[in-house]
Amino acid sequence: MYAAFTAFLDQGDEAIVFEPFFDQYISNIELPGGVVKSVPLTPPSNDGTDIVSSSEWKLDFEQLEKTITEKTKMIVLNTPHNPIGKVFSKEELLKIGELAVKHNIIILSDEVYDSLYYTDSFNRIATLTPELARLTLTVGSAGKTFSATGWRVGWVIGHPELLKHVTAAHTRIVFTVNSPLQQATADAFNQAQTNTYFSDNVESFKKKYAIFNSVWDELGLPYTVPEGGYFLLVNFNKVDFESVEKTVEFPEDIMNRPKDFKLAYWLIQEFGIVSIPTSEFYGKENEHMGENYLRFAVCKDDHLLEEAVEKLRGLKKYIKN
Amino acid sequence: MYAAFTAFLDQGDEAIVFEPFFDQYISNIELPGGVVKSVPLTPPSNDGTDIVSSSEWKLDFEQLEKTITEKTKMIVLNTPHNPIGKVFSKEELLKIGELAVKHNIIILSDEVYDSLYYTDSFNRIATLTPELARLTLTVGSAGKTFSATGWRVGWVIGHPELLKHVTAAHTRIVFTVNSPLQQATADAFNQAQTNTYFSDNVESFKKKYAIFNSVWDELGLPYTVPEGGYFLLVNFNKVDFESVEKTVEFPEDIMNRPKDFKLAYWLIQEFGIVSIPTSEFYGKENEHMGENYLRFAVCKDDHLLEEAVEKLRGLKKYIKN
Repeated sequence: MYAAFTAFLDQGDEAIVFEPFFDQYISNIELPGGVVKSVPLTPPSNDGTDIVSSSEWKLDFEQLEKTITEKTKMIVLNTPHNPIGKVFSKEELLKIGELAVKHNIIILSDEVYDSLYYTDSFNRIATLTPELARLTLTVGSAGKTFSATGWRVGWVIGHPELLKHVTAAHTRIVFTVNSPLQQATADAFNQAQTNTYFSDNVESFKKKYAIFNSVWDELGLPYTVPEGGYFLLVNFNKVDFESVEKTVEFPEDIMNRPKDFKLAYWLIQEFGIVSIPTSEFYGKENEHMGENYLRFAVCKDDHLLEEAVEKLRGLKKYIKN
Repeated sequence: MYAAFTAFLDQGDEAIVFEPFFDQYISNIELPGGVVKSVPLTPPSNDGTDIVSSSEWKLDFEQLEKTITEKTKMIVLNTPHNPIGKVFSKEELLKIGELAVKHNIIILSDEVYDSLYYTDSFNRIATLTPELARLTLTVGSAGKTFSATGWRVGWVIGHPELLKHVTAAHTRIVFTVNSPLQQATADAFNQAQTNTYFSDNVESFKKKYAIFNSVWDELGLPYTVPEGGYFLLVNFNKVDFESVEKTVEFPEDIMNRPKDFKLAYWLIQEFGIVSIPTSEFYGKENEHMGENYLRFAVCKDDHLLEEAVEKLRGLKKYIKN
């Protein structure tokens, strides 16, 4: 994916990301000298009290249009979205695409969770109009698709006029992807065409969510129901943070980080459960927007998720009524 | 290797390479905004008429010292050297090292052919003095060491203070190396400790050179006897280029390239033998220095080398007396 960024971003060029964002985008934009501009994905106002859908997190299109300048080279889209689990609707994609076409901006569409969506359909922006096909680079991952993240095999699909630049950068950075696991990926795709891997995988993840979400339902802690991917954002607003602070001593390097860093540290110490503090998916300016959320990953064996549920029941006494 | 370059080179920083150079260094320096400065490795004056040793190609140390400026961040060393096959002597390494220490310059020592040397010993600059250990990043490759270039497993060895920057860049560019072939590499090293792989490999390459060099001896075309690696530089000075130009029509994209590009094209068309034009290992300014040489790779099955010898005998009628 770095090749796609470095192929198009020169010193001072701007790339727009939707906040919260997968943190790797930031260094991938900044390493070649690019400048990150962010546009918020905003949750519904009741997300601190109620279970909401990831579809209710909305992109601020007015803000998006205002953020585009003459220096904007790229819009980074991520669907299914990490960490929200949002699957962008066709209408949303067309609105983003309209702006990209109007200003001739490349769309980097990170669709690495494209085989894991729980909605009726999944739309790829590159397929919506011929102009969007010409402007879009679609990123996929064998690691995500076949639960083999150590293979380091991915791909970029796009118009030859865009791809030639990505290929040039890729050749100079890593030369090629490793060939044995590229072959294994091809075999995996061929086999998945003739068996039920993809639908089994979706069912398997639906079950994992059912197991893991049950404890949040029990506790009454609201979360965002994902439409895709394998993450869950839980809102810890109702957890009595004053009590939390009394039970654990925080190491120095998180003392000045937002509340979610402390909550994540506490969950490890107190319950043996690892999560990612969501403020890390925001820029410095907006990191407070993430401070109530923790991101959990459900790509674990069912029995581990069941153990996690058992452990997390201990949160009950920290919940404010 | 790109991670090591991008970790230390910012916009305008200079990196010194020895010319001829492995061409990948150039883009690796320039992509993060670095500036290439080159210092020649000069062949002996009789290399157009006599067989010479790669040890006779000498680095211009005076030029090296003059090329160092306040912006010099890195010296790129390559031993065994591609394309010359030179294995830098301890004395040469110490002289390079002295300058690096004096000016506090990082040495990137590309030693990917370190298991293929035909000299009595192979010196690693990082091991020569404690100051050099502190300043050197040593690059190795499972692909070269175990003839598995498609594995894309390599390593950088160095002081933790340097490595932490390489690791940071590596994490942001590729995240990790693929783990299955990393494991395979570890297994290969373990097995090679208990069998004769490394010495067998050296003997095997000595035999390959004996097969392939024989045709140049027969033809009387001089070459540089390599001390390491698996390349051979042959000097085509004695080939009657006027006759060559009459036998083949050159495609447009090499019409304005140096003579070696045309010779390489002709060798493919006329004899079915692929080589690399050596001017490609030089910058624009010095590319004429490479125009008489073609680089051949002997990392082929013996029977293919024997077939190549048979085909190359056809060069006889083009040789000037």
